[in-house]
Amino acid sequence: MKGSLLYEGKAKKVYYVDGKPEQLILSYKNDATAFNGKKKDQFAGKGRLNNLITARIFEHLHQQHIPSHFLKALNDNEQIVQKTTIIPLEVVVRNIAAGSLTRRLAIPEKTALNPPIIELFYKNDELDDPLINDDHAKRLADVTEHDLDHIKILALKINEILKRLFRQADLEVVDFKLEFGRLADGTIVLADEISPDTCRLWDVTTGEKMDKDVFREDIGDLIETYETILQRLEENKCVK
Amino acid sequence: MKGSLLYEGKAKKVYYVDGKPEQLILSYKNDATAFNGKKKDQFAGKGRLNNLITARIFEHLHQQHIPSHFLKALNDNEQIVQKTTIIPLEVVVRNIAAGSLTRRLAIPEKTALNPPIIELFYKNDELDDPLINDDHAKRLADVTEHDLDHIKILALKINEILKRLFRQADLEVVDFKLEFGRLADGTIVLADEISPDTCRLWDVTTGEKMDKDVFREDIGDLIETYETILQRLEENKCVK
Repeated sequence: MKGSLLYEGKAKKVYYVDGKPEQLILSYKNDATAFNGKKKDQFAGKGRLNNLITARIFEHLHQQHIPSHFLKALNDNEQIVQKTTIIPLEVVVRNIAAGSLTRRLAIPEKTALNPPIIELFYKNDELDDPLINDDHAKRLADVTEHDLDHIKILALKINEILKRLFRQADLEVVDFKLEFGRLADGTIVLADEISPDTCRLWDVTTGEKMDKDVFREDIGDLIETYETILQRLEENKCVK
Repeated sequence: MKGSLLYEGKAKKVYYVDGKPEQLILSYKNDATAFNGKKKDQFAGKGRLNNLITARIFEHLHQQHIPSHFLKALNDNEQIVQKTTIIPLEVVVRNIAAGSLTRRLAIPEKTALNPPIIELFYKNDELDDPLINDDHAKRLADVTEHDLDHIKILALKINEILKRLFRQADLEVVDFKLEFGRLADGTIVLADEISPDTCRLWDVTTGEKMDKDVFREDIGDLIETYETILQRLEENKCVK
């Protein structure tokens, strides 16, 4: 069933599906990278955790009528998705100031951002994924004004859903990164992953960082942290 | 008539007007700075040229119904303006790729940008005037979505007027920077200056750079260049 390798990224390998050209298999790797690949390590079990966390979140988003590429988890490390042409934008939603925003604009960490701030970054390793505005995106990422409006509305809806979902898991959604892709018919859907690699999550009770910042800042055990996220999400599976 | 000094910037001094609290006098300096103040020099006569060029351009914009702070040139180096509260944004309009855009996004110099690209930079020397998006501007610069729409519409109108004006002077408007301010009643008007310090202008016939890039890149005589701009604008004063 699994066909040949289409592409290997920093966090996932992407395979064709034999006989189903409109589908792909994402195989989550154990690699962790930060600062655009300048910091690297491997963690046994990380691929499984991000695969299962992403599957759990995308299933929940599907129930809430968010269109995505996700079809189903195949096994511990792999999921099957609809093939999309990825739009080369990282769409970041920020509810609380942290990370690059605090450095770039001197907004103090933990400042509440209400309404949330949406940022677009141009996915381009050579340029270090620069922040761009809507005019740049229209020029560089083959999107129209209407596409960008649609993407931002989806991003804000996803934010509301994720805030509720994680609040039940005693976690605050500080910020997260989304990617979108186009199906063969041009429809824009959520793609890529949503995991502690792509979100900042703070424990509501202790304030502890429960995401890739434990790796970026060397402040905790990545696997233990990600395992806690998965467990808390599983415990709340039936809660609406 | 000229009151006490309110503020000294890199290119201008700003004075109160005795008995007229709603007006200010801008006194243009001979200093040239580039790369956020990292390169500096003085050019006798530069203040006069930027004062007279700005006056000429703002008079023309006034005739074309663009609201601005400009009232009139007082003498060679000074002009009188309506007092505004400056909105801390640099609004850049780009018709052709040049300067920071080519470095940030690897768009080759001279690439035509149609429609033009508008960029917002947060006026903050300590942060090196970072590029920001509309969400950041709403957070940092005390502007609403409606204000930003209004500013962008004004910027694009000014672009069309400047392109026509400079085309008559055999100059292509590559890009330029605007600043806006609020009058006492809240109305947003064009403020600051429009001069070869704040525009990129290329000679239509020779392709020569006719703006502050002659200073940035040490490729010509700044005073001779700015004098040519003023002369060409004066020669076309009556042309519509």
